[in-house]
Amino acid sequence: MTDIRVQLQQKIDLKTKPLGALGILEKLALQIGTVQNTLQPSLYAPTIFVFAADHGIAQSGVSAYPPEVTFQMVMNFLNGGAAINIFSRQNEINLKIIDAGVNYDFPSHPLLIDYKIAKGTNNFLQTVAMSNAQLDECFQKGRAAIEEQIPERCNVIGFGEMGIGNTSSAALLMSALCDLPLKDCVGRGTGLNDSQLARKVEILTRAKEKHVGITLPKEVLQTFGGFEIAQMCGAMLHAYEKNMLLIIDGFIATSAFLVATKMKPEIQQNAIFSHLSDEFAHAKLLAYLEATPVLQLNMRLGEGTGCAVAFPILKSAVNFLNEMTSFEDAGVTNKEE
Amino acid sequence: MTDIRVQLQQKIDLKTKPLGALGILEKLALQIGTVQNTLQPSLYAPTIFVFAADHGIAQSGVSAYPPEVTFQMVMNFLNGGAAINIFSRQNEINLKIIDAGVNYDFPSHPLLIDYKIAKGTNNFLQTVAMSNAQLDECFQKGRAAIEEQIPERCNVIGFGEMGIGNTSSAALLMSALCDLPLKDCVGRGTGLNDSQLARKVEILTRAKEKHVGITLPKEVLQTFGGFEIAQMCGAMLHAYEKNMLLIIDGFIATSAFLVATKMKPEIQQNAIFSHLSDEFAHAKLLAYLEATPVLQLNMRLGEGTGCAVAFPILKSAVNFLNEMTSFEDAGVTNKEE
Repeated sequence: MTDIRVQLQQKIDLKTKPLGALGILEKLALQIGTVQNTLQPSLYAPTIFVFAADHGIAQSGVSAYPPEVTFQMVMNFLNGGAAINIFSRQNEINLKIIDAGVNYDFPSHPLLIDYKIAKGTNNFLQTVAMSNAQLDECFQKGRAAIEEQIPERCNVIGFGEMGIGNTSSAALLMSALCDLPLKDCVGRGTGLNDSQLARKVEILTRAKEKHVGITLPKEVLQTFGGFEIAQMCGAMLHAYEKNMLLIIDGFIATSAFLVATKMKPEIQQNAIFSHLSDEFAHAKLLAYLEATPVLQLNMRLGEGTGCAVAFPILKSAVNFLNEMTSFEDAGVTNKEE
Repeated sequence: MTDIRVQLQQKIDLKTKPLGALGILEKLALQIGTVQNTLQPSLYAPTIFVFAADHGIAQSGVSAYPPEVTFQMVMNFLNGGAAINIFSRQNEINLKIIDAGVNYDFPSHPLLIDYKIAKGTNNFLQTVAMSNAQLDECFQKGRAAIEEQIPERCNVIGFGEMGIGNTSSAALLMSALCDLPLKDCVGRGTGLNDSQLARKVEILTRAKEKHVGITLPKEVLQTFGGFEIAQMCGAMLHAYEKNMLLIIDGFIATSAFLVATKMKPEIQQNAIFSHLSDEFAHAKLLAYLEATPVLQLNMRLGEGTGCAVAFPILKSAVNFLNEMTSFEDAGVTNKEE
């Protein structure tokens, strides 16, 4: 263990509680303190980015909802009525919506950042989802989001997304990068029934066969990714470079993180997995990453809602570390060894 | 389903999200709205009671900590430095400490309520933990806590506890009332090692054999209970009578709830189980109650900390129900059926 980890663990162990009695909160406190290299960590100006984009594959009937729901939900975000708005308000989190490639011309709006690459990706049944130049642009925009779109001194950032069809992208990223059979990676998304799910598996199997042999992270991302996933991946990598804490939402955000971790394994030190999604493949993807989610609420909404709902738990971790008394200070007798 | 449940489910299903996509938050919203019989529920003036008491059995070496830690931790609560203080402050929850029977003369303090029955229970290895009159007094005090010690219009109350030795009481309550072998009910409490755990099982087996054949809820409570467990049970029953929401903490609070539910099965409608404790038997006790915990953070601290940490999740449930837009209002296309 590094020095700071030893000191943090000691500080945690001397708090007035049995050893380990705060469970995952103790692990979070240790992680956050280690990332920030301090015994008094903080969560400052927390911000959630919701990256939104449309997907060529959505034209092939892989989702329970029509593609226009992507832009409609973005409008819902801008109007303040979606789940992520409610939870961000509740927990005092800054919220920004990033148009990474939605098939719609939005009016300008204070919450909206125009990083549109194109009005949706290509359908990967026919060709790669995006060009090499577009992928590069996604990484630049992701970097710009961290450089330009967060409040001063912000040190914790949540990653969410919106994009009809994007569980299909995530499934293919997972299958290619974890080398897992597609059936382990495909779930019901926004709510497919059994026959629709079978059709989704069949379509994605064709896509995988068309692009067989693709294994390099950026190549996989270019082939199957959405613009929102690629920008998220770029933003995660840059947030790590700036030593921020990364809060990862559900299945799709974790698939973006998967690409990032293949490019930069150390990024995992800064990542907190907010929740276990009810989307079928998320449990297996987290297991692959050896990641423990904070919450297990059977949510599967995306939008960064897992990040927002989990945020008070992260605060509890930081607060007990900073504010609880030690056995000695409180005059409480410690365990008899 | 009752009318209000049907209406609440409809309201939940028309929110701009796939059906069921908010998982346990939806179930909480449905439960809270049903208890309050409204489509616009609220969590008003949330309050946590920490019931504290000493236990005769603690003299027999069932805990990793000496008995004086009970009063020392109460002083720690009064001084604001314990985990429950930190988490209650964070989440704007009123906190009251109830001296149900601690072996110490406390100075008066605004956070402390003097409901002391005696300076600890009898050791149930020798006799019943408390007299019939003391049990009655516990129920009266529990009732008084709800009548007299909560802020006006408070409609949600968390139940926590402190008492060296009280996992032993809880284990015996569980074993007797769930008709489960003692070994399924006994855990490491504040952190026993293997040989200490074996000794605890052996001691509690003797206690169970001494009081064999006791099965009526109040009789079991009188025999094995602590004053804090009995007052908690009484307070839960009265909070239910007043149609409040009950937030149950970990293993010991759930054992108090177990007695309450044996006396008044309908109480479960109003109960929210804040977390799955890391104390060994809690999972089995929740399963017996067919209860789903909100959090699974491997915590095992007591003090009501599970209630306090889970509270923002309950708020998220109420907030999405009250504040999210519907598909129609947001102009978002609903799923194609």
